[in-house]
Amino acid sequence: MSHPIGIRAYSSAPFDISTKILKDDDIAKHDDKKFITHPLFPHPTFTDAECRAVEVEHREPRTLSDKFAYNVIQIVRKSFDYVTGYKKSHDITQTFKGTRYEMTENKWMTRVIFLESIAGVPGMAAAFIRHLNSLRVLKRDKAWIETLLDEAYNERMHLLTFIKIGKPSLFTRVLIFMSQGIFTNIFFFAYLFRPSLCHRVVGYLEEEAVATYTHLIYQLQNNQLPKFNNLEIPTIAKQYWAELDDKSTFTDLILRIRADEAKHREVNHTFANLKTKTDRNPFALELKEHDDPQPNNGLDQHRGTGWERKDLHL
Amino acid sequence: MSHPIGIRAYSSAPFDISTKILKDDDIAKHDDKKFITHPLFPHPTFTDAECRAVEVEHREPRTLSDKFAYNVIQIVRKSFDYVTGYKKSHDITQTFKGTRYEMTENKWMTRVIFLESIAGVPGMAAAFIRHLNSLRVLKRDKAWIETLLDEAYNERMHLLTFIKIGKPSLFTRVLIFMSQGIFTNIFFFAYLFRPSLCHRVVGYLEEEAVATYTHLIYQLQNNQLPKFNNLEIPTIAKQYWAELDDKSTFTDLILRIRADEAKHREVNHTFANLKTKTDRNPFALELKEHDDPQPNNGLDQHRGTGWERKDLHL
Repeated sequence: MSHPIGIRAYSSAPFDISTKILKDDDIAKHDDKKFITHPLFPHPTFTDAECRAVEVEHREPRTLSDKFAYNVIQIVRKSFDYVTGYKKSHDITQTFKGTRYEMTENKWMTRVIFLESIAGVPGMAAAFIRHLNSLRVLKRDKAWIETLLDEAYNERMHLLTFIKIGKPSLFTRVLIFMSQGIFTNIFFFAYLFRPSLCHRVVGYLEEEAVATYTHLIYQLQNNQLPKFNNLEIPTIAKQYWAELDDKSTFTDLILRIRADEAKHREVNHTFANLKTKTDRNPFALELKEHDDPQPNNGLDQHRGTGWERKDLHL
Repeated sequence: MSHPIGIRAYSSAPFDISTKILKDDDIAKHDDKKFITHPLFPHPTFTDAECRAVEVEHREPRTLSDKFAYNVIQIVRKSFDYVTGYKKSHDITQTFKGTRYEMTENKWMTRVIFLESIAGVPGMAAAFIRHLNSLRVLKRDKAWIETLLDEAYNERMHLLTFIKIGKPSLFTRVLIFMSQGIFTNIFFFAYLFRPSLCHRVVGYLEEEAVATYTHLIYQLQNNQLPKFNNLEIPTIAKQYWAELDDKSTFTDLILRIRADEAKHREVNHTFANLKTKTDRNPFALELKEHDDPQPNNGLDQHRGTGWERKDLHL
C-alpha cells in the first residue's frame, strides 16, 4: 500500500497538511469487503429525527476543576484551529472565502481524521486502567469498561470510515503519530490520579466535536462542499451503522457521527459527575423498577450536558 | 466492605497468604444480583463433553524465541510454586500429604485468585496497544482486538467468580497489587517491540494454567477437597456461563474455566505463528468458502498447540 504525498491545499501553510479526497473508483478499490466481521460493539439504532435533533450544548463549568478542564480544551482547540486554518464562528453561515480560514473538502478531511485519531484514545486508556484496577483490588468494575470500550471502538470506526474517503499527506500522518504519543501519555497518567477530571475534559472535547460536525453538516446542506456530493459511503460504514445503505449520502453519515459525539458528550459529562470508584455505570443497565427517566445507550433520553448524580439510581 | 485478614494455613509460611473460603451464607450475602448486566462478551457455548476432553498439551519450542518464552514461564512458575507451596508432579495422584506441598481448599483459592489477577493483563495490554496502533497508522486492526478483549474479560470473570467464593488475606492482596505493577509494565513494553514473542509467552502460561486446573479437577473428582463439595456457584458465574445453573457444582465451574484457558492457549500459540501487523485474526471470522478446517471461537475445532500459519486462510 503506497501513501502518496498530498498536494498543497493553500500556499500559506508551512507544511503540507492536505488530505487527498479519493475518487469513487479509488474508494471502491480500497474497500476491503473480505475482512469485515460483525461490529465488535453493535451500534444502537439512532433514528434520523434523533440525529437531526442533536445540537450544540454547553455545560457551564461549576467547580474549579470544571473550569480547568474547559480551559484546557479551549486552549488546545484554538491552537489546533490556528495551525490548521480553521475559525470557529458564532455565525455558522460565515465562509471566510478567500482567506486561510476557508474550509475546503480537503481541509475538512484532514481535520476529522486528525480529531478522530485522538478521540479514540481516552475510552481505551480509561478502560485499560479500570480493568487493571478491577483485577488489582479484586472488585467488580460495575460496567464502566463496557461503555468506555464502546466509545473507543466507535471513534476508531469513524476514523476507519474517513480514511476510506480521504488519504492524508505524509506530514499529516507524522503529526497524528506524534500527537498520539504526547496525548496518550498525558491522558493516561492524568486518568490514574484524576479520572473525574479526565471525563470532564472529554465532555468538553465532545462539545467541540459536536460544534465542528454541526458546522460541517451546515456546509454540506448548503452545498458548499460539492466534492462530498454523490460520494459513495464505504462498506465499513454501512456495516457499522445499520441504518446506512447504498443510497445514503455523506451528510447522512456525518449526522450519525455527530450523534455519536453527542452521546459521548453526555456519557463523559455524566461520568464526571459520578463517584468513579463506587458508582455503577448508569448507561449499561436499564432499571425497570423506577418511573423517573434514567440514561440508556440510545438518544431518546439524551441530556447533552450530562445527568446529575442526584437524578440517578446508582 | 471489610477485608478480614485470613488465618494462617500452615505454619511454615513466612507471611499469611491464606484465603478464607466463604460459607454458603456469606456467599449469598456477597452475591450482588442488582448490578449484574449482560456479559460484555457473551461466552460461546462449550458442551460438557468438550470441556471434559480438554487435556494438558505442550507445543515443542522450535525457535530460539520459543525457547526463551518457554523458559521464562518455567522459571516464573517454579518460583511461584516454591513460594506458595505447590509442587507440579507428573503423577497427578500424588497428594504430598503432611508436607508443605499438600494442597488445601484454602491454598487452591489463593493460587487461582492470584493467577487470574495476572492472566487478565496480557489481553487488555495487547488490545490497548493494537488499538493505539490502528489509530496512529490509520489502518484496520483486522479483528485481533476483539479476541484479545474477550480474553481479558474472560480472565476477569474467572477472578470475579473466585472472589465470591474465597476471601484472600491482606498480604495476598498486597502481593497481587505489586505483582500486577511489575508484570504489566514488563508485558506492555515487551508487546510494543515483540508482540509475537509475547503471545508465545502467554501460550506457554496457558499451558501451565491448563495443567494446574487439570490437577484441581482431579482432586475435586477424587473427593480430596471436601469444602468445595455442595458449594453454591455465584450468580455472576451462572450469568456468564449459560450452561451453569443452580444445580451446577464447583467441578462444573472449574471444567469450564479450564476450557477457557485451553482456548487462550490455542489462540495465543496461533497468534504467535502469525504476522501481527498484516494477518487477520482467524478466530473472529468464519470463512465459508473453504473446505479445510479453520479456527473458530468454540472448542469443536480445538488445536491445543496452535494453528500453523500455512494451514490458515488469511
